[in-house]
Amino acid sequence: MERTLSSEIGAHQGGRVRLCGWLHHQRRLGQVSFLLVRDRAGIAQVVVTDEATRAEADRLVAETVVEVCGVVEASDQAPAGFEIHQPSVSVIAAPADTPPFELRRRKLPAQLPTLLDHAAVALRHPQRRAVAALAAASAHGFRASLDELGFTEVHTPKVVAAATEGGANVFPVDWFGRQAFLAQSPQFYKQTMVGVFERVYEVAPVFRAEPHNTARHLAQYLSMDAEMGFIADHTEVMAVLDRVLAGMLSAIGERARPALELLELELPTVPERIPVVEFRHAQHLIEEATGEPVVGEPDLSPAHERWLGDWARNHHGSDFVYVVGYPMAKRPFYTHPSPADPAASNSFDLLFRGLELVTGGQRLHRYEDYLAALGGAELDPYRGYLEAFRYGMPPHGGFAIGLERWVARLTDAVNVREVALFPRDMQRLVP
Amino acid sequence: MERTLSSEIGAHQGGRVRLCGWLHHQRRLGQVSFLLVRDRAGIAQVVVTDEATRAEADRLVAETVVEVCGVVEASDQAPAGFEIHQPSVSVIAAPADTPPFELRRRKLPAQLPTLLDHAAVALRHPQRRAVAALAAASAHGFRASLDELGFTEVHTPKVVAAATEGGANVFPVDWFGRQAFLAQSPQFYKQTMVGVFERVYEVAPVFRAEPHNTARHLAQYLSMDAEMGFIADHTEVMAVLDRVLAGMLSAIGERARPALELLELELPTVPERIPVVEFRHAQHLIEEATGEPVVGEPDLSPAHERWLGDWARNHHGSDFVYVVGYPMAKRPFYTHPSPADPAASNSFDLLFRGLELVTGGQRLHRYEDYLAALGGAELDPYRGYLEAFRYGMPPHGGFAIGLERWVARLTDAVNVREVALFPRDMQRLVP
Repeated sequence: MERTLSSEIGAHQGGRVRLCGWLHHQRRLGQVSFLLVRDRAGIAQVVVTDEATRAEADRLVAETVVEVCGVVEASDQAPAGFEIHQPSVSVIAAPADTPPFELRRRKLPAQLPTLLDHAAVALRHPQRRAVAALAAASAHGFRASLDELGFTEVHTPKVVAAATEGGANVFPVDWFGRQAFLAQSPQFYKQTMVGVFERVYEVAPVFRAEPHNTARHLAQYLSMDAEMGFIADHTEVMAVLDRVLAGMLSAIGERARPALELLELELPTVPERIPVVEFRHAQHLIEEATGEPVVGEPDLSPAHERWLGDWARNHHGSDFVYVVGYPMAKRPFYTHPSPADPAASNSFDLLFRGLELVTGGQRLHRYEDYLAALGGAELDPYRGYLEAFRYGMPPHGGFAIGLERWVARLTDAVNVREVALFPRDMQRLVP
Repeated sequence: MERTLSSEIGAHQGGRVRLCGWLHHQRRLGQVSFLLVRDRAGIAQVVVTDEATRAEADRLVAETVVEVCGVVEASDQAPAGFEIHQPSVSVIAAPADTPPFELRRRKLPAQLPTLLDHAAVALRHPQRRAVAALAAASAHGFRASLDELGFTEVHTPKVVAAATEGGANVFPVDWFGRQAFLAQSPQFYKQTMVGVFERVYEVAPVFRAEPHNTARHLAQYLSMDAEMGFIADHTEVMAVLDRVLAGMLSAIGERARPALELLELELPTVPERIPVVEFRHAQHLIEEATGEPVVGEPDLSPAHERWLGDWARNHHGSDFVYVVGYPMAKRPFYTHPSPADPAASNSFDLLFRGLELVTGGQRLHRYEDYLAALGGAELDPYRGYLEAFRYGMPPHGGFAIGLERWVARLTDAVNVREVALFPRDMQRLVP
């Protein structure tokens, strides 16, 4: 008999089905036992009244992989209104042990380190699985939105010869006896590929050797990068980002509806125009409101970002807010200055509910500007990258979204490790 | 004025358009100059008769980023039947130098090492760009086919604590002072995630420290991995792979048609049933045909694979052939043996035009089978992985496709480096 998924049994009311999955939970009452069987689509309730079958079921531990054949009946008490009656239950695979925590609880009854240590089991919990489904739908939405806008997907090296981009936080790799490094971002490569496809994206892991364990940093995370040519300035990049955010949210709505419902989440909407605030104006607002002397500081602190998040919600009804015009001093060397004020940049951060989610902006595109920006630096490590500009490159810009940070913010997770499948940090290299 | 892409000028016949792109080539005749302008959609021809504009154009080197405004006219000589007349030409960005080779040639006039050294420019060549477009479309087709079959995308660690999977060919990473390794595959993680989503896939880089420079190995390549639960045996995995291959080919047809035409490629078709040959039967066939004593060898050599590729083409009209039932001795420890013959495995290779493209099969799923398979090995490095089986796992299996190898075979590339954007090997860490 064909297998039926838990979500589809309603279509077979009165008929026999074959259900396969994990024994999520069982309850024995006086005359009846209830088995909950979990499969990839959800959970189905199985009602056992036959005493021999009940006795057999009693011997099954949680997470036993079972096959249940039985008749579908409507029931007000069952998930989605249907349950399985007159079942035969057979074991497909018996666990060697009882799980380290009870997956049947609405919230997993263990602390984060324990859950991460036992990821193979913890991720089976419906809530954790739902979070992973949001991540999958988000990545799909990112790609689909950019596909529609004429972007091409690229795949670039994750091991590079020199730590050319972001200073000290790199992981050394022993590359056939030579020292190399894990890539901190695909920045140089995606810019190079603008010379080829004009519009490119990449969804791939990046690696940051952050020497502190914060709740919002991972040593490996999934970077969703986009870069586009023939722009007037960074505002065209922001317009594409608006579309991408809307596309990610609509992909979640279409592809992860059950996950949203299970997590009881309300998705934010991307307003017609996401509010934009100038960096210096933002500092004035914060200084006025808090009395703290922040005007003149070169960057915003996490507390300031939270303040701006609240401000955007209260004054503009938006979960999102752009901060533009960051001082050049705090942006990477390839950042394009603002034509109106060379100390300010054509760059932006997008805050989502008070947390920096996206960084982006316009990049330099003239070869001589790169030579000037790199100043006295040894040019050899940059040679492959500089060729892109040496041989003609249009004005361009782009952005990067951290997938885990996005999902953490969507689900209001306290720690970004809650939403990564197998997070990596200073301490954590397993599982 | 809005920008018009080269592929769309025909829709504006008789009207003015603004075209942006790179100066691909220019030819000066007695009374007229022709400029070819390349953008992400193709190449447009610009006809210049005005002497002042011709003189200006003469000063432009190849790869100058230009803006051309002019009137669209039909022409039998122009690409796609239209060209731009009465143009004004302005420079958006001037190159600092002449490219190291002429991109206008039908074939790039340089050897592979030179092309790879100058990837930023070489990838702009229409043929190389077309190959990259095939790769992008293939990855899309892989994901779309599996999405349709209820698979969920996952993202797993690329740095692992121990070289548990494939022996010696691993890259050591310095992880905050501890030794770690680049992941050779997502195998352990995708199996673990079968316990969560039943059906998962990942498209991500993997790393193999192959100590020799062959034409078919890269030290980093893109692995397209799938894994699925609740199977009877490996043949169900093969049925999914058939669908995925067909989906990849149809995505190329839909999304990369211009690339196919430019490369003058004919796509293979996936036959209703891809021919399947038993490993031992294959050896008999080869021995009979070649006189070589191959029966009893534990594996097929590349030459034998080529022979089988020809055999499949000649006897079954198929570019694809499955070899099944490889000896357990040559397959990884997690391979499921054949119930009929414990020395043979429920595994397969898929040869595409005589080259191994995909490896897959059914995996062990019982905890005690893993303990036995790992024999006397230190179990601690496997603990996180083994938890998946310890707490109930269904029969499952999967496969992995190397994207670059797939594209190389499609395009008949002699060396897999021809189809990677920025290949990595023993010698090559830049660009």
